[in-house]
Amino acid sequence: MTNIKEPKKYEVIGTRPLRPDGTDKVTGRAIYGGDFEMTGLIHGKILRSPHPHARIKSINYDKALELEGVIAVVTADDLPVNPDGNISIGYSRGNILAKDKVLYVGHAIAGVAAIDPHIAEEALDLIEVDYELLSAVMNVEEAMDSSSEIIHENSFMKEFGEMTVTNNNIDEHFQHKMGNIDKGFENADLIVEGKYSTVMVHQGYIEPQAATALWRTDGSLTVWNSTQGSFPDRDELSNILDIPISKIKVVPLEIGGGFGGKIPIYQEPVAALLSKKAGNPVKIIMSRKEVFESTGPTPGGYTWVKIGVKNDGKITAMQSELAFEAGAYPGSPVGMGSLCVFAAYKCDNQLVDGYDVIVNKPKTAAYRAPGSPNAAFGTEQVIDEISQKLGIDPIDFRMMNAISEGDRRVDGPKFPVNGLKQVLESMKNSPQYQKKLKGSNKGRGIAVGYWFNVGLQSSCSITVNTDGTVNLIEGSTDIGGSRASIAMQAAETLQIPYDSVNPSIVDTNTVGYTAVTGGSRTTFSTGYAAHLAAEDVRDQMIKRASEMWGVPNDSVVYSKGQFSSDADPELSMSFKELASQLENTGGSIAGKGSINPKKVGGSFAGSICDLEIDPDTGKSTILDFTAIQDAGKAIHPSYVEGQMQGGSAQGIGWALNEEYFYDQNGIMNNSSLLDYRMPTSLDLPDINTIIVEVPDPTHPYGVRGVGEANIVPPIPAIANAMKRASGKRFYNLPMNPPAVISKLNQDL
Amino acid sequence: MTNIKEPKKYEVIGTRPLRPDGTDKVTGRAIYGGDFEMTGLIHGKILRSPHPHARIKSINYDKALELEGVIAVVTADDLPVNPDGNISIGYSRGNILAKDKVLYVGHAIAGVAAIDPHIAEEALDLIEVDYELLSAVMNVEEAMDSSSEIIHENSFMKEFGEMTVTNNNIDEHFQHKMGNIDKGFENADLIVEGKYSTVMVHQGYIEPQAATALWRTDGSLTVWNSTQGSFPDRDELSNILDIPISKIKVVPLEIGGGFGGKIPIYQEPVAALLSKKAGNPVKIIMSRKEVFESTGPTPGGYTWVKIGVKNDGKITAMQSELAFEAGAYPGSPVGMGSLCVFAAYKCDNQLVDGYDVIVNKPKTAAYRAPGSPNAAFGTEQVIDEISQKLGIDPIDFRMMNAISEGDRRVDGPKFPVNGLKQVLESMKNSPQYQKKLKGSNKGRGIAVGYWFNVGLQSSCSITVNTDGTVNLIEGSTDIGGSRASIAMQAAETLQIPYDSVNPSIVDTNTVGYTAVTGGSRTTFSTGYAAHLAAEDVRDQMIKRASEMWGVPNDSVVYSKGQFSSDADPELSMSFKELASQLENTGGSIAGKGSINPKKVGGSFAGSICDLEIDPDTGKSTILDFTAIQDAGKAIHPSYVEGQMQGGSAQGIGWALNEEYFYDQNGIMNNSSLLDYRMPTSLDLPDINTIIVEVPDPTHPYGVRGVGEANIVPPIPAIANAMKRASGKRFYNLPMNPPAVISKLNQDL
Repeated sequence: MTNIKEPKKYEVIGTRPLRPDGTDKVTGRAIYGGDFEMTGLIHGKILRSPHPHARIKSINYDKALELEGVIAVVTADDLPVNPDGNISIGYSRGNILAKDKVLYVGHAIAGVAAIDPHIAEEALDLIEVDYELLSAVMNVEEAMDSSSEIIHENSFMKEFGEMTVTNNNIDEHFQHKMGNIDKGFENADLIVEGKYSTVMVHQGYIEPQAATALWRTDGSLTVWNSTQGSFPDRDELSNILDIPISKIKVVPLEIGGGFGGKIPIYQEPVAALLSKKAGNPVKIIMSRKEVFESTGPTPGGYTWVKIGVKNDGKITAMQSELAFEAGAYPGSPVGMGSLCVFAAYKCDNQLVDGYDVIVNKPKTAAYRAPGSPNAAFGTEQVIDEISQKLGIDPIDFRMMNAISEGDRRVDGPKFPVNGLKQVLESMKNSPQYQKKLKGSNKGRGIAVGYWFNVGLQSSCSITVNTDGTVNLIEGSTDIGGSRASIAMQAAETLQIPYDSVNPSIVDTNTVGYTAVTGGSRTTFSTGYAAHLAAEDVRDQMIKRASEMWGVPNDSVVYSKGQFSSDADPELSMSFKELASQLENTGGSIAGKGSINPKKVGGSFAGSICDLEIDPDTGKSTILDFTAIQDAGKAIHPSYVEGQMQGGSAQGIGWALNEEYFYDQNGIMNNSSLLDYRMPTSLDLPDINTIIVEVPDPTHPYGVRGVGEANIVPPIPAIANAMKRASGKRFYNLPMNPPAVISKLNQDL
Repeated sequence: MTNIKEPKKYEVIGTRPLRPDGTDKVTGRAIYGGDFEMTGLIHGKILRSPHPHARIKSINYDKALELEGVIAVVTADDLPVNPDGNISIGYSRGNILAKDKVLYVGHAIAGVAAIDPHIAEEALDLIEVDYELLSAVMNVEEAMDSSSEIIHENSFMKEFGEMTVTNNNIDEHFQHKMGNIDKGFENADLIVEGKYSTVMVHQGYIEPQAATALWRTDGSLTVWNSTQGSFPDRDELSNILDIPISKIKVVPLEIGGGFGGKIPIYQEPVAALLSKKAGNPVKIIMSRKEVFESTGPTPGGYTWVKIGVKNDGKITAMQSELAFEAGAYPGSPVGMGSLCVFAAYKCDNQLVDGYDVIVNKPKTAAYRAPGSPNAAFGTEQVIDEISQKLGIDPIDFRMMNAISEGDRRVDGPKFPVNGLKQVLESMKNSPQYQKKLKGSNKGRGIAVGYWFNVGLQSSCSITVNTDGTVNLIEGSTDIGGSRASIAMQAAETLQIPYDSVNPSIVDTNTVGYTAVTGGSRTTFSTGYAAHLAAEDVRDQMIKRASEMWGVPNDSVVYSKGQFSSDADPELSMSFKELASQLENTGGSIAGKGSINPKKVGGSFAGSICDLEIDPDTGKSTILDFTAIQDAGKAIHPSYVEGQMQGGSAQGIGWALNEEYFYDQNGIMNNSSLLDYRMPTSLDLPDINTIIVEVPDPTHPYGVRGVGEANIVPPIPAIANAMKRASGKRFYNLPMNPPAVISKLNQDL
C-alpha cells in the first residue's frame, strides 16, 4: 500500500516484475559460497579458542601435519608482520588468527587444510595449544570498571573534549553537543530518564560464511566467497595479507543473507594462507556454531536517555550516554547510535556521550542500521513515557517535535528533505491505528526510527545486444532483489522493457569499484550508476542514429523508445531497430556510469504493534503489526515491502527472544539455531506495510534506501506496547517470557 | 630476429613480457573446458554413427533409460522443428543430431546424461538404432560424378555465370575472372600445369572439445566451454535451439588449442537439451576418437593450376580449378582457397573455378588459413616448376611477379599496403638462403603464402584501480598469448607498465560483442578496441585532472605518464597519483572501446626448407627451416615467433605425415594421436624465424595478424625441396615414406 497518489510517471519503476535470480534460487541452482567447486579443491577447518580470554603460550601442530590427508597448517605466524605498526591492520590480522592472546570463545588460532573436511576437522584435535587463562570481561559495565582485566595491553587512551578516559578497555569516548543542556533541563516542566540495555544478537543469516581461496605461485590471489562487498574484501585482503589490490581478484558468489554481517571477512585470509602453503585452492565453510561464536554479531550495551519537555509537549533538552560492546577489537556502532539516538526530534539543547568498549566477545559487525535500534530502545521508550505522562497521543507528540528539513542533527549537519512527518501521518491514518485495541493484557505501542543511508562508490556498464536487449554488469552483490531494482532503473532510462535488461554481478577485475551492499545504498547508488550508464548508451545510440541518418547529433531525440530527428519527420527508429544496426555502424555499444554520491537523504520508519501478554506464561503474542517507511521512490514495491517485513521480523526477534546467552565462564550456551530461537513464521503475524514516498532530490528517481531503518522502531514499539499491556516499563532485552514473568511479579 | 632497424618508438610494444595466464597454465590451475565443476553436475555421452552413410529407420532408447543412473536421453526429435525451412539452420541442427540419415562415421545420433560418465557410456550400447545402409561417397572426384549417391536429397542446385551444376553433391560452384584467360595463355612462352591433391587433416589441438550446459526452468541457458568465440557460440546456440540470444550466456573457459576447429559448436546443444530434460547441468567431454571423427577437420580435394609465362619470367595467365570436400554439410573453405590461390602474383588474366563438394565425412571447419594451404600446394609448385624451367632463382621469379599495393585480386579488390616484397627480400637475405646446401638426396625449397586476415567486431572495457593499475576485460578467448598482446597495447596507450594492466576474458553477458579468436584478428581488432578503451580512460583522466586543478580541459595533456597543464607549469600528476584521487572526484573511471574494422591488411609469409630424403626408407628429414612473415608490427615478438613456428610445425606435419586414413568402408583407421602421427619435437628442426614489419596503416600500432599465413608456405616449400632433392614432383599429400618410396620407384 503506497499512500502517495500521483499520475503514473514511470513505465518500469513502481512495477513488480520477477527477479532475474529467482529461478536459480528457487530451483537450487544458484551458486552460493559453499557450492563452489573447482578441480584440485581441498578443504580447510579452523581451530578456535575454547576460552574467552587467555594467553597463548605455545602452539604445536606437528601431529596434525602427520595425519594422513592433511596438507597444510597455518597460524598467526604465517601472517605478514606489521612493521609499520598500523594498529588498525594489526587488529584486523588479530581477529583473523590470534597471535599472543585469544580474546573470545571462537577466536581463530590455526587453520588446517586437508583432502576432505572431515580429516581437516579431525586434525584440529591434534593441535596442541598451551594457554594461560585470564579473567574474562563480558559486559560494558564490567569492562569500564577501572579494576577490570585489560584486554588490549597495547591499546591507547584517547581524550576527547573535556573527558578523560581512565580505563583502556574503553577504546574511544566521544561527545556531541548542541546548545546548553543544563539550561534546557532547567526550562523543562517534566524530565524523564532511564537506562536501557540490550544484549548481543546475531544477524542470523541462513547461509554460513563460505569462501575458497587460490594463491598462485606468481603471488596472485583469487577468492570466491559469499560477501556483501567484493571490492572492500579485496581492500581488506590486501591489508591483511600485504599484497597489492591488483594481485587480488574477489569473485562474489550468491549470498544467503548478510544484514551487515558479511561485510567483514573471516576465513578468507586463512584459506588464502593455506592455499599458499598447499598450492591447491582451499575452501572453508563455517558451521553454525562458528557463525555465532566467530563472526560479528551486533553489540549489547546500554543507552541512558534523559529528556525534558514543557507541559505543552515541546522538548527542551535531550541527553544520552551510550556504551556499546565493541567485542574483542575496537569498532562498535556506538558512533552511529549516538547520531541516531535523537535524530527524529528537534531540540536546541542536546548532549550525547558515546563509549566504544572492548569485551571478551566476538568483534561486533554491522547489523541492519547498526547502533540505531540499541539507541531507539531507550529514546522511544522515554518519549512514550513522556507522551503518557502528558496525556498526548504518542504520534501527535512525535509530530509536534519532529525534525524538518534544515533542522540540525546533534553533530552539526542539517537534515535534508525527509519523510518523518509523512511517516507519522501515515501511521496515524493507518487502518491498524484507526482501529481501537480492546481487552485486558493487550497494548499498542508505536515508535519511529532513523537510518542515515550512505552513498559510496558504485559502477555499472551496459552493453547492447543486436536484438535490442542489453547486458548490465554491476559490482553490488544482490541480497534483497537489487538485480531487479537496478535493472529497472536502467530499463526506465533506456525506455525499454524490464526483461530486456539482463543484469550480472561480476568480480573485482570486471567492473569499476563498487562499495558494499550495505548502508541501504545499493538501489540508490548502483541504481544511479546504472542510470548514468543507460544515459551513456542512449547518447551513443543517438550519435549512431545521427550518423546513419546524416543529420546533426543534436537534432536526434529519444522519446518513448523511439529515436527521431527534428531534421526530417520521416526519420524514426526503435531502440531494437537501431540495436540491430550497431554491428555495421562501428561495432557494439557499451555505456558506463560511476558515482560517489556524498549527500544522501536518510530514511525514517515507524512501527505500530498490538500485542497481548499471557500473564501465566509471560509469552507475548503480536496481534497486529504495521511497518511504515519512507522509500523516497519505491522502485520495486514488493521488494521494499519485503525489506520492511524482514526488518520488522528481525526487530521482533531481537525484542522478544534473541540473545547470546553466556554462562559464567564466558561460553555461549545457545550457539545453534534451535537454541538461539529466531522467530519463525509461526511466531509472527502478517506484517502490514505502508510505503511512504518523499523523493530524495539527490537521486534521479528519488530513491531512498530501505534496507535498514525498518529494524529500528519495532523493538521500542513492542516495549511501548508491553508497557501499555502490562503497566510495566521494560528496560532490558530480550523481553522474553522469563523476563515478563519476573517483571509482572515485581508487583506481587 | 626482426629485420627492421628503427629507433625505439614504443615503451611496451615490441618487448617480451610474461603472459598473464602463464602461471595458471604451467601449474595446472587454469580451468579448461573439462575442468569445470559445479554442484549437481551430471555427465553426458553421445551415440555416434558407425556407418558413413545410412538411413535411420528407428531409434529406441527405452533400455538406456532403464539403466540405473541414466537421467535423460535426447535425439534429433528434441531439437526444435524448422518451420521456416532455413536451410542453413537445418544443416546446423543436422550436424548436431542426425535426423533421418547419418552422413559420416561419428555423426551424432543421441545424447545420454547419467550420474557419471561411465554409466552414460554404458547406456549408449543400450540404444537400438535400425539403419538402412547407403553407399558412401568418400572423395570429391567420386562425389562430383553424376552417377554417385546423392547425399542431401533436398539440396539445391545453384547456377553461376555460364556454369551449370548437374550433380547436387556439389553444393556450390563459383567462378572468378579477370582479363582474358585465353589470350593470356596465347601470349605465354611457357605453360606449366598440374593437379595437386590434399587429404583431410585435423587441427590436432591438444584439448578435446568440452562443454557444460545448464538449461534453467525459466528458459535461460548457460554454457561453459572451450571455444574460440563465446559470442558466435551464443548466436549459433540461439539458431539451433531457437531461443533468443538474451537468454543465453556463454562462459568461455581456457582453451587448449583451436586453430579454427573450435569455432563451430558440437556437443553444446546436446548438453543443453539433456540439461533441459534432466534439470541438472550436463558436461560432455569428447574422446580423441570423437575429436577426429566428429569435429571439423580441414578438407582434402584438389587444386588444378595452369600458369603461362613469357621467357623473361612475366606471368601472362593463371588458371585454377579447386574442388574441396565440404564434408557432410556445405561450407568447405574453397571460397577462400580460390582467392588465395594466386594472391601473391600479379597477372591481368586470371580464371578461378571453385567447387564445394559434399562427401560422407565430417563437416569440415576452419584450420589455420583455411583453404590457402591446399591452394598453395598447387600454385607454389607450378611456380617452382616454372622457375626451374626458366632457370630463374625461385625467390627472384616470385619477386618479379609479386603483387604490389593497388594491384587487383582475382575477385576485384585492390591489395592494400603489404609486405610480400619485404618477405621475399628477407628470405633471400636470410642466413639459411645465403648458405649453400650441399650433398646428394638433399634439396632446398621455398614458397610463399597469403592470408587475408579479418577485422570483425571487438569490444574492451578498462577500469582504473586506486593504485594506478587497470583491469581490462575482453571477449576474445586467448589461444596464443593474446591476453598479453592486447594488454600491451592498452599499456602503451595509457603510458603505464605492462604489468599494471590486468586482463580478463569474460562471458557474453559482461562485455560487448566480440567475434571469434580466428582469422588472425585478435591482436589486431581486440587490441584496437583495447587501445580505444585506453584512450577513453586517458580522456576521462584528463577531465578529472582539469576539474581538480580548475583549469580548462584542453589545457591538460598526458605525456610520458604525466598529466600536466599549459595553464600552470606547476601542475603535474602521474597516472598513479591521479588514480588514487578518483574516489573523491566522482568515483572510479571505466573506458570502453568497440570497433568493427572493415579494411584489414593481409599477411604474407614465406618458408625456406632444406631437407634430405633417405632413399632406402623414404623418410624425409628436415635439416633447416626458416619461417618469414610480415607481422605489421610485432606487439610481442616471442608470441609472433611462436605463431610462425607453430604454423610451420603444422605445415610440416600436414606435408609429411598427417592424413585421415580411411578404409574401404569409410571408416577412419587412425583416429588416435598415436596412429594419426602429428610431428613431435623429435621430428622437427629448430625453426628459424624472421619477423618482417610493414605496418598496416589501418591499425593504430600497425598490427597485422600473424596466426595463419605461416601454415601456407611450408607445405609447398617442402614439396619443392622434395623435387630438388629427388627430381620428383609430388602431386599428392602426405609425402610420407611410402609415398616417397613409391615415387622414387617410378624411375626404376
